[in-house]
Amino acid sequence: MAQNQIGREIPQEFVDSFGLFEGQFAKKHEYKRASGMVSSVNPGESKILGSIREAIEKSGLKDGMTISFHHHFREGDKVLNMVMEEIAAMGFKNLTLASSSIANVHDPIIEHIKNGVITNITSSGLRDKVGAAISHGIMENPVVIRSHGGRARAIEKGDIHIDVAFLGAPSADCYGNANGSHGKATCGSLGYARVDAEFADKVVIITDNLVPYPNTPISIPQNHVDYVVVVDSIGDPNGIAKGATRITSNPKELLIAENACKVITASPYYKEGFSFQAGTGGSTLAVARFLADAMRKDNIKAGFAQGGLTGHLCEMLEEGLIEKVIDTQSFDLGAINSIKNNPNHYEMSASFYANPGNKGAAVNQLDVVVLSALEIDTNFNVNVMTGSDGIIRGASGGHSDTAAGAKLSLILTPLIRGRIPTIVDEINTVITPGESIDVVVTEIGIAVNPRRQDLIEAFAKLHVPQFTIEELKEKAYAVVGTPDPIVYGEKVVAVIEYRDGSVIDVVRQIQK
Amino acid sequence: MAQNQIGREIPQEFVDSFGLFEGQFAKKHEYKRASGMVSSVNPGESKILGSIREAIEKSGLKDGMTISFHHHFREGDKVLNMVMEEIAAMGFKNLTLASSSIANVHDPIIEHIKNGVITNITSSGLRDKVGAAISHGIMENPVVIRSHGGRARAIEKGDIHIDVAFLGAPSADCYGNANGSHGKATCGSLGYARVDAEFADKVVIITDNLVPYPNTPISIPQNHVDYVVVVDSIGDPNGIAKGATRITSNPKELLIAENACKVITASPYYKEGFSFQAGTGGSTLAVARFLADAMRKDNIKAGFAQGGLTGHLCEMLEEGLIEKVIDTQSFDLGAINSIKNNPNHYEMSASFYANPGNKGAAVNQLDVVVLSALEIDTNFNVNVMTGSDGIIRGASGGHSDTAAGAKLSLILTPLIRGRIPTIVDEINTVITPGESIDVVVTEIGIAVNPRRQDLIEAFAKLHVPQFTIEELKEKAYAVVGTPDPIVYGEKVVAVIEYRDGSVIDVVRQIQK
Repeated sequence: MAQNQIGREIPQEFVDSFGLFEGQFAKKHEYKRASGMVSSVNPGESKILGSIREAIEKSGLKDGMTISFHHHFREGDKVLNMVMEEIAAMGFKNLTLASSSIANVHDPIIEHIKNGVITNITSSGLRDKVGAAISHGIMENPVVIRSHGGRARAIEKGDIHIDVAFLGAPSADCYGNANGSHGKATCGSLGYARVDAEFADKVVIITDNLVPYPNTPISIPQNHVDYVVVVDSIGDPNGIAKGATRITSNPKELLIAENACKVITASPYYKEGFSFQAGTGGSTLAVARFLADAMRKDNIKAGFAQGGLTGHLCEMLEEGLIEKVIDTQSFDLGAINSIKNNPNHYEMSASFYANPGNKGAAVNQLDVVVLSALEIDTNFNVNVMTGSDGIIRGASGGHSDTAAGAKLSLILTPLIRGRIPTIVDEINTVITPGESIDVVVTEIGIAVNPRRQDLIEAFAKLHVPQFTIEELKEKAYAVVGTPDPIVYGEKVVAVIEYRDGSVIDVVRQIQK
Repeated sequence: MAQNQIGREIPQEFVDSFGLFEGQFAKKHEYKRASGMVSSVNPGESKILGSIREAIEKSGLKDGMTISFHHHFREGDKVLNMVMEEIAAMGFKNLTLASSSIANVHDPIIEHIKNGVITNITSSGLRDKVGAAISHGIMENPVVIRSHGGRARAIEKGDIHIDVAFLGAPSADCYGNANGSHGKATCGSLGYARVDAEFADKVVIITDNLVPYPNTPISIPQNHVDYVVVVDSIGDPNGIAKGATRITSNPKELLIAENACKVITASPYYKEGFSFQAGTGGSTLAVARFLADAMRKDNIKAGFAQGGLTGHLCEMLEEGLIEKVIDTQSFDLGAINSIKNNPNHYEMSASFYANPGNKGAAVNQLDVVVLSALEIDTNFNVNVMTGSDGIIRGASGGHSDTAAGAKLSLILTPLIRGRIPTIVDEINTVITPGESIDVVVTEIGIAVNPRRQDLIEAFAKLHVPQFTIEELKEKAYAVVGTPDPIVYGEKVVAVIEYRDGSVIDVVRQIQK
């Protein structure tokens, strides 16, 4: 057992295999980029196969290999279950599932875990049933949780080697040129899938919309594709656009968003050409609305916004409040239509977006990011992974990537949720280290990270109450009392890899 | 000395290092893709350097390394000379120059060769003075001539490892996101440069047009770029668009083009959705005009055209005669403006275009390609590299790539040029093997390769005189007599690598 830089206790075996987290920029990455196997295709040879089963056979899949999927279809995804069902039926065992993320719709993998088809998982997140099953110790090997940028880094450095990538594509041609913006089940950006296609040995494109050659725009190019399989349906559009969210009408969330907007506009970064990222979720989504109002009033335009994009930001693009958006994941129909139609809405790969080990990620160019939290501790460390019951139900996503990259990182959170304080002495799981977080914004006021004396000075005249993080915690505890600690077992069910590849935390099994 | 499949005498040392050409699809490529070194860039670190010299220093360039440039600026390029002058001034020696091609404007490299700065060259082509100097034996080591697809294959397989790529970009941002369609010295597609950026250890973007982040569209992404240098001028627009050509008014060339159009339209490939490529040069350019007329008359639309693109094809795109064009090199202002403005004009990398060692190149999807020749022999082997005096002055380009990929490959050539026959018993240099060529088209008629009995049948009623290739040769010889053989020395001044990496021919030194 060893303590890492933020005081988390890490069992020695994970220290040995991942290294201890030593600070957000402690690691400088110097390496030869990983690469996949290539088997050349001559004129006249067809890549189109008759079935998923044939693709699995041709891919050379073997027991013990690593397979990958992307999560651009979110809760509407049919590809992962379709392929896993066939793989299980064919009798494969001991596979590593390296999806970019895992959604509720993927609950059938619980059976594949029980049957020994899947024995290792790496993912950004795990939702309800799968997360609970993992937290209760269903797997022998811990899941490795990686941020979106960390996954790209792991693939590019060779920590994850994908043997076969099964990539759903809303449109593809006979050679595998694929995009997400045209078809029956559009998802917009294919930013996560691009990394898999670039580095996997074998790449299978699965589509329900085969179009004439050449399919453009090209997100995944033919020279990264081995096989194409046409199926009836790759996804349910309603589930795909489930990231769609209305702006909250909850007064507490609106107050948090308003406070956040005041912080942003009072910061030194709010000026012509600034950049920002704001994701989905109650308050974070509402920030964009308040910010748009402020930008109109102040006649300030953003140079770019990025992310995980919602239609709200795309409306700001249309209006001219934002010059360009760069997009690794389109959350809703508004964003999907925008990437299809607006040339200033540009797709980027997950590596381009957030990989801390490449020649420079887009997150490094961010001025402001607006993030949420399940919990935050008095050192500003943030949990977006485990619930107050200690059970895995969240996703690492781009949280630690954007927080590290942006000049101003805001955490928007209510002081308490239900009867649970969100600002606490110790959080269950650290995804993002406190050194990456600059300001915590609640409905009653904000706390600035004491590392940022420059911001404390900049906010001297801000019309938002200011507290220390300890004061915010005390106010939360004063309402709901000191939370009871969760009783964990010894077994580690998930390793939380920091974006640089070191271990920042582990999640232990829940005692029933 | 050994004879390869088409009977060319290859000295043993090149047989040993390249392998003998054994046929256009004799090799199946199975390999782990090569890759470059990565040095990560953290937030706050700048990629912008103050000068070319600083970039050379920071790149870690050492004697004996391989450097690369792209040829998208053609005769307007200022980047290669600018960088080479600095490299020479800094005292570097024994470098390998791995430009995608070399133009007349690059004559100063003759001095760098004489001074030992450059001791190896690989390129698609060599023009006037440099070609002549090489042919007269200025270099100790032979130049390696590679096709556009062959160069991409060599880079992706690791046969060429680029240590530092110096890539001129008409627009770039502070992180190196680059495109060729915006700026002062636009060149359109950056298709060749993309391969260098993807596989080189260090990539320096040189631009005269630094734009706000993020520069879009993104041809070369930031994660493939180490440094950015801003200079006054990277290129002369007039020289860049020198590929621009008017359609010929020469009656002989027009007759050849008309015959070619009759061949194409009588072929089984001429139907709704067909695809074609036609480059620059007198007759080949004129074919597009005749073909456009035929397509209008027959109400047939092409699914796509590709290449090396001219404005003439882009006008067909605008008119709706072609659905899409995919572009690895924009030859003239018409093409440059089209790629900037028309979303159905799509950039592709040289690997995507023509690499025979990747998972499927665009040339494999071609129905028809229209090519030119300096000489063609009675086995249909084609020379586009050495003049009738045996001196290097041409370029391999995409000739052998498209000829191998397309279902119907036409060679357009006058029977004689000046007092020199173009159809001969033996050509000086083989770039494209006869098995890739289907029809030779001259002003007096055509010859179909006897391998293509299907075409001979299809053309039974064609209103173009048909001959054997021997008959065409005899007709040429009848006019100008049998050509005198060129007297070569023993020394090999250039190795002609076939696109698959084997040696298809060598060029020997000219006896003065």
